[in-house]
Amino acid sequence: MTYQHPTMWVSIDCLVFGYDVSEENLKLLLFQRKVEPFAGQWSLIGGFVNENEDLLAGAQRVLKTFTGLDGVFLEQLSTFGKAHRDPGGRVVSVLYWSLIKLDSIQKEVVNSHGAGWFDLEQLPDLVMDHLDMTQLGMEQLRRNATTTPIGFELLPEKFTLPQLLRLYEGIYGKSIDDRNFRKKILATDVLVRLDEKDKSGSKKGAYKYMFDERKYHELKQRGYHLDFSIK
Amino acid sequence: MTYQHPTMWVSIDCLVFGYDVSEENLKLLLFQRKVEPFAGQWSLIGGFVNENEDLLAGAQRVLKTFTGLDGVFLEQLSTFGKAHRDPGGRVVSVLYWSLIKLDSIQKEVVNSHGAGWFDLEQLPDLVMDHLDMTQLGMEQLRRNATTTPIGFELLPEKFTLPQLLRLYEGIYGKSIDDRNFRKKILATDVLVRLDEKDKSGSKKGAYKYMFDERKYHELKQRGYHLDFSIK
Repeated sequence: MTYQHPTMWVSIDCLVFGYDVSEENLKLLLFQRKVEPFAGQWSLIGGFVNENEDLLAGAQRVLKTFTGLDGVFLEQLSTFGKAHRDPGGRVVSVLYWSLIKLDSIQKEVVNSHGAGWFDLEQLPDLVMDHLDMTQLGMEQLRRNATTTPIGFELLPEKFTLPQLLRLYEGIYGKSIDDRNFRKKILATDVLVRLDEKDKSGSKKGAYKYMFDERKYHELKQRGYHLDFSIK
Repeated sequence: MTYQHPTMWVSIDCLVFGYDVSEENLKLLLFQRKVEPFAGQWSLIGGFVNENEDLLAGAQRVLKTFTGLDGVFLEQLSTFGKAHRDPGGRVVSVLYWSLIKLDSIQKEVVNSHGAGWFDLEQLPDLVMDHLDMTQLGMEQLRRNATTTPIGFELLPEKFTLPQLLRLYEGIYGKSIDDRNFRKKILATDVLVRLDEKDKSGSKKGAYKYMFDERKYHELKQRGYHLDFSIK
C-alpha cells in the first residue's frame, strides 16, 4: 500500500449491440447478474477487473466468460463513477462497447452461456445505471451513423437499399423517409449498384448494391454529414 | 466489503489546453507531482478520487486545488488502466479534458499555485503515461477542428482570418495553406465579415470577422467536414 487514499472496485461493463441480419433488427446482449446485490436481474455483461489485468484484456475476458463471444472488437466508451451508483460498494465501471453482425452461430454460443439478445424496443429492467449506459451507446451509434458510413460489417455483401434503410431505421429507432434516404446515401458515393435484383420484396424488384470498400474506409476516416432529421 | 475482488486506486487526471490569445499559442497546464513515486516531476494535474465523490466532482476539485481554476468545463476523455502503468500501485486513471482561453488572470492564478502553462512544442518529460494522454487529447482536438467549428470560446469577439488560421495551425501543429484555409472556412458560412479592418499586420489590413453565433452552434451540433490535409 503506497498511496494513502481509499481504494475502490473497478468493474467492466460490455455494451454489445448485435444487428440481426435475418430479422433486420438491432439487439442488445444481456445476462443475469451473478453477484449480490441484484443477482439474477438483467444486466449488461459485467465483471470486476483483476489485479494484474489491463482494462481492455479485462473486457475481453468478461465478455468471453459470460457469453462465449471471442475476438469481438471492443472500444472504450465512457467510465461511470457516481459515488453511490452501486449499493454493493464503491464501484467505478469502465464501459466498453461493440456493434456486431449476428448470425445463428453467435446466437447459439450466447444462449448456451445463459446470456441472450434482446430487442431494443423490449428491454427488461436493467440493474443500476445500465439503462444510462445503453442510452449513451445508442446516442453514439446515431452520431456514428450520421458522420461515418455504417453497414459494411453488418449487412450481407450484396444488399438492397431497403435493407440498408432498415438498418438505419433500427439505429435511429424511427422511420426514415425512403426517397430522402436514397438521395442522401447515394450522394456519398459509397455504394456501387450491381446488375442484379432482389425480387423477394416486389415484382419490380430492388437493385442490389455493394459498398465501394476503398471509398467506405476513406469516408470512415474522413467523415461526412448525413442529416436524416427530415422525415 | 461486499465484493470478493481486489480493489484499486482511482485517480483523475486533467488535460487542460489553453489558447493564449496574446501569444497566439496553444499551451498545456502542468504541475509538479505531489506524491511519490515521481514527486516533483512534471505531470498533468492529478489526484485521487475520494470515497463519496462523483468522478466529475473529483475532477473539478483536483483542478481547483492544484491550479486555482474554478468552473472550467471538463469532459471525460478516456480511462487509462494498463495494469502496471503506475509503479506506486494499481491505479486506474480517468482522464478529463478542456480547452480554455487564457487571459492574464488565469495565468496569474495558476502561477500562484505553482502550476504552469507550457508550450506544446516545448513540453518537459511527463510522468508515466501522461504523454500518451496528451497525444490522445491532441488527436481529439484535431478531430474536433475538422468536424465542428472551433474558436468562438478561444478568440476575441472580433478577429481576422490570419488570427483564426494561427489557432488552427496551433491545433494541427503545422502550417496550413492560407488560400485553401480561407476558401474552406468561408464556405462553412459560419463567419460574418465586418466593415472593419485590423491594420496592425499590414498596410492593406485584414478584415475583421465575427462568428455567426446561431450558425456556429448549429454546426457544432450537426458537424461538417473540413479537410486541411492539402498544404
